[in-house]
Amino acid sequence: MTRSVITIKKDILAKNDELADENRKRLKEAGILAINLVSSPGAGKTSLLVRTLNEIGNKARFAVIEGDQETDNDAKKIEATGVPVTQINTISACHLDAGMMRKALDTFDLDSIDTLFIENVGNLVCPASYDLGEKMKVALMSVTEGEDKPLKYPKMFRVSSALVITKTDLLPYVDFDITAATDYALKINPDLKVFKVSAKSGDALLELYDFILSGAHDL
Amino acid sequence: MTRSVITIKKDILAKNDELADENRKRLKEAGILAINLVSSPGAGKTSLLVRTLNEIGNKARFAVIEGDQETDNDAKKIEATGVPVTQINTISACHLDAGMMRKALDTFDLDSIDTLFIENVGNLVCPASYDLGEKMKVALMSVTEGEDKPLKYPKMFRVSSALVITKTDLLPYVDFDITAATDYALKINPDLKVFKVSAKSGDALLELYDFILSGAHDL
Repeated sequence: MTRSVITIKKDILAKNDELADENRKRLKEAGILAINLVSSPGAGKTSLLVRTLNEIGNKARFAVIEGDQETDNDAKKIEATGVPVTQINTISACHLDAGMMRKALDTFDLDSIDTLFIENVGNLVCPASYDLGEKMKVALMSVTEGEDKPLKYPKMFRVSSALVITKTDLLPYVDFDITAATDYALKINPDLKVFKVSAKSGDALLELYDFILSGAHDL
Repeated sequence: MTRSVITIKKDILAKNDELADENRKRLKEAGILAINLVSSPGAGKTSLLVRTLNEIGNKARFAVIEGDQETDNDAKKIEATGVPVTQINTISACHLDAGMMRKALDTFDLDSIDTLFIENVGNLVCPASYDLGEKMKVALMSVTEGEDKPLKYPKMFRVSSALVITKTDLLPYVDFDITAATDYALKINPDLKVFKVSAKSGDALLELYDFILSGAHDL
């Protein structure tokens, strides 16, 4: 039983990786930087995206793919920023996959996009295994979570290129050792670029914006 | 491809449900109330458990099963309360299943347990589909998450018997509409028993303790 499940899983992932490679080629040809945002539910992906688009939406041509099990609440928030957005509802699935990503790409005029944010389903486990064809995964982790999350869910931090520690405005009110959190994350993945920001107060967002806007240069 | 995956998934769930029924029978025979705690990573399951065990650990004979992808950090915190604990590391799996639960049950002297807490892997999606044989699922959601989580991840709230809104001590510092959160949750599942607590300040924990301690009566 277990053995056959593992085989099927491998087939699914192999098929996903094929589709992801096609998506990656398509994105590269269109000159699009695609950033896959991954985190627990509630780490602040949408709030960070909304503030980012409001503040640097005029510095590049952005688009957003929103992944949720149900509702288009997040897509509505993005739409209010004036940036094109496509909502994917996964219903039972716990992550986006490359097939869903391909369908979402079909909804955009790719030649009019520089940077595409993909907000994955809130889940610190499953999205780590699914390549969508993105340039990089960026993991978010809020200061209201335990600082040992990188140790307890290491794969997500291993496959990400950057870590954004969010909600730093709440640091005075929580028991969160931000130095330990950074150390744990770098222990799992020494190449992680780490940002510590607040989408509420705006703290340290400029550094993150530089990273996003300069990321398109090495496509 | 999609069709065969769905079939396999059904087989997995059917097999899981069989094992879950065996676990449930075993728990009932031993007179154990099993509570499956489910939430996003960082919603505060471990902190709530530790305070609960420290405060009412002498009112019943408790035991804990801890689920994480990796590390035994949480099991160590539980162990410090003096309550028997077994850690399950799921490595790649995004949820506990009934087979893992059976193995964990084998590690305990079931005749010396009244109430068994199972802290599932932090994940608001996958654990909703897997019956472990527990009496009830209790979902946690922190006030630092968006209040629309019940709408975006409805299945978890549909299959849970109670919702514990955690970290209420942070309410003054976050934009969280606790009335809306409660309304959304009850819209998804009108039978949910809702608690609003802080494991840090201790706010409203007595009501939750009553619920836990009285739950064993109707086994």
